[in-house]
Amino acid sequence: MATDRKEPEYLFTEKQIAEKSEIARRFLDTRTRLNENVDKADNFLVKRFYNLDHNTYLEGALPAKYKELMGLVASACLRCDDCINYHVIQSYRLGVTRAEQEEAINVALVVGGSIVIPHMRRAYELLTELYST
Amino acid sequence: MATDRKEPEYLFTEKQIAEKSEIARRFLDTRTRLNENVDKADNFLVKRFYNLDHNTYLEGALPAKYKELMGLVASACLRCDDCINYHVIQSYRLGVTRAEQEEAINVALVVGGSIVIPHMRRAYELLTELYST
Amino acid sequence: MATDRKEPEYLFTEKQIAEKSEIARRFLDTRTRLNENVDKADNFLVKRFYNLDHNTYLEGALPAKYKELMGLVASACLRCDDCINYHVIQSYRLGVTRAEQEEAINVALVVGGSIVIPHMRRAYELLTELYST
Amino acid sequence: MATDRKEPEYLFTEKQIAEKSEIARRFLDTRTRLNENVDKADNFLVKRFYNLDHNTYLEGALPAKYKELMGLVASACLRCDDCINYHVIQSYRLGVTRAEQEEAINVALVVGGSIVIPHMRRAYELLTELYST
Amino acid sequence: MATDRKEPEYLFTEKQIAEKSEIARRFLDTRTRLNENVDKADNFLVKRFYNLDHNTYLEGALPAKYKELMGLVASACLRCDDCINYHVIQSYRLGVTRAEQEEAINVALVVGGSIVIPHMRRAYELLTELYST
Amino acid sequence: MATDRKEPEYLFTEKQIAEKSEIARRFLDTRTRLNENVDKADNFLVKRFYNLDHNTYLEGALPAKYKELMGLVASACLRCDDCINYHVIQSYRLGVTRAEQEEAINVALVVGGSIVIPHMRRAYELLTELYST
Repeated sequence: MATDRKEPEYLFTEKQIAEKSEIARRFLDTRTRLNENVDKADNFLVKRFYNLDHNTYLEGALPAKYKELMGLVASACLRCDDCINYHVIQSYRLGVTRAEQEEAINVALVVGGSIVIPHMRRAYELLTELYST
Repeated sequence: MATDRKEPEYLFTEKQIAEKSEIARRFLDTRTRLNENVDKADNFLVKRFYNLDHNTYLEGALPAKYKELMGLVASACLRCDDCINYHVIQSYRLGVTRAEQEEAINVALVVGGSIVIPHMRRAYELLTELYST
Repeated sequence: MATDRKEPEYLFTEKQIAEKSEIARRFLDTRTRLNENVDKADNFLVKRFYNLDHNTYLEGALPAKYKELMGLVASACLRCDDCINYHVIQSYRLGVTRAEQEEAINVALVVGGSIVIPHMRRAYELLTELYST
Repeated sequence: MATDRKEPEYLFTEKQIAEKSEIARRFLDTRTRLNENVDKADNFLVKRFYNLDHNTYLEGALPAKYKELMGLVASACLRCDDCINYHVIQSYRLGVTRAEQEEAINVALVVGGSIVIPHMRRAYELLTELYST
Repeated sequence: MATDRKEPEYLFTEKQIAEKSEIARRFLDTRTRLNENVDKADNFLVKRFYNLDHNTYLEGALPAKYKELMGLVASACLRCDDCINYHVIQSYRLGVTRAEQEEAINVALVVGGSIVIPHMRRAYELLTELYST
Repeated sequence: MATDRKEPEYLFTEKQIAEKSEIARRFLDTRTRLNENVDKADNFLVKRFYNLDHNTYLEGALPAKYKELMGLVASACLRCDDCINYHVIQSYRLGVTRAEQEEAINVALVVGGSIVIPHMRRAYELLTELYST
């Protein structure tokens, strides 16, 4: 089923996010630093996977913002803090409200159980930094 | 963060779904039969959990249909066929299109990897039955 | 930390269980049939693992019945129907009550989330057969 | 199946635990700090989940101490260090011996495999601090 | 890191496997039937994922047969019967011996724990059919 | 199926690895320190499990180096950084090339999905330190 895919329009750059939240800044810096190693390795399949991953979250039949929130739910269910940080930030950059982020996390909490709670606590700390005025 | 929650408006009853899809019918029948046992047991915490589960997917800050799709993503990532069937059906009942269902499954596929494929294959069979005209 | 380990005293044989519950009978028969293949292969490490597994649930610092219930919680959290059936049966054979089995399953439900529910439903069907009078 | 539930009687307060073990102190402090964020958010479903979680481990058909150990087994199987710390501490507060804690961890090790070992190592460090005289 | 990739040379066709083993035949038939649905949907990202998946197991720095065995280990650890069947069959088609398959499964058993056992039992049944003379 | 098992011949000692890579040194030091606690506890089943674990990776029907890579795939799929570090180091000690390590990680990435990426990034940092000249 072919659907048009295009880059979403972000309301904020990663740089703006890093200035707003110390947790986000540390995450983004570490990710950038580690990705340099991965880029240097120039592994064909890894690059293909990164490309596929990128394409998954573009605007399409579903608005990009809901797919980022789905990425957040998946990340919280599978309990990956880095992935949670990434999708919380991406969702924020696409204008998702805090209430929407919390509801997405609630889905992960109910599906994934109390084992999700420590990750949820850390996600709430990031939410608090991002959505403070 | 308090948000109003209300029951979503379904376009189809479970009965209509069961008439449209044999896979859905078998799933819903088995689920009903097994839930009778659970209901008879009348376990306080199980009832509380069912209630919490129900509340998670109501209309709120996020439209119910996107939360059902998030439940689908979580179920596919955690690889539970019964849960996938349930959320595919619920999404269908809320008017989600096939293209939207496929995009949600794509998020689960990319986040969860090829281990999701056998579940995706079975989900596509259900999608084909539900969205046939 | 050395502790005496000894075989627990079962109130029922597997044969008695198979006569009481059709679900248990099918599970035990399939398990026996498949284990014959494994036994024939005579794989050194598999035998060592089976032996280690057996030793884990003997009477020790903790009564065997609570360790079988812990095996049930682990099995339900990790969502393995065969393993759930096995530990429900073992717990029953050691005199665990239905209320105790349900409370163990509740721990798995809360820790593991709604993804545990389909397995819980099937476990309740087995519980109903075993604890019917 | 209705069973009376009541709060367990703890032999030690969290404060006493924090004085006894530096690992426990750091865990409890971080947990308290992060929970403040969660509390402030005042999310209805999160509060309901916390309440359900709390109710799961009360005295009931099974003594609270065995349910805490079941929570430990589930946490170790699902490999969540924070959850392991929490249930090791709760078990200690309810008078569980070190040998009992080790046997519960053994169930998780055998069910969950060598992937549990790094978490077991860290759990043993906490056990050593808690059970030193 | 660029490495040449080329299709492995199979000693047996899927058709020959299906004639040798009834379990393999049922698995391959169902997979073919379900993949027809997926193919008909013609989802861009699914096709990309299938392509990436295919490329992962080609001859490269590592011989294809060891990568199929790695796929088997991953499948057994993550406990996916369909995936286990697939990689057992692929390994067989590339000339892997039964002893080699068993050792790969042993890695999955030790890393993944007793929760792997029910899947191992079923894998041994397939091994027995494939390696019978 | 009995096969001769013998210790593999390592090209490097753990000490040499620790001198080559700071990440490896920190991992090995922490592991040694924590294992002292485990050793002191002298738990019969833990010792049995460690022994079984050790035996799984010996030379056998499959060369030890491929089994270490299988351990790496399993660890990356199940997303355990300590286990990934361990098997990357063991593989390096057995003469596995960087290209071979990357291909093993690719299997884990495709089977396990994007959730593996943060672990892959950290693994690449270790690879870069180990394979620098």
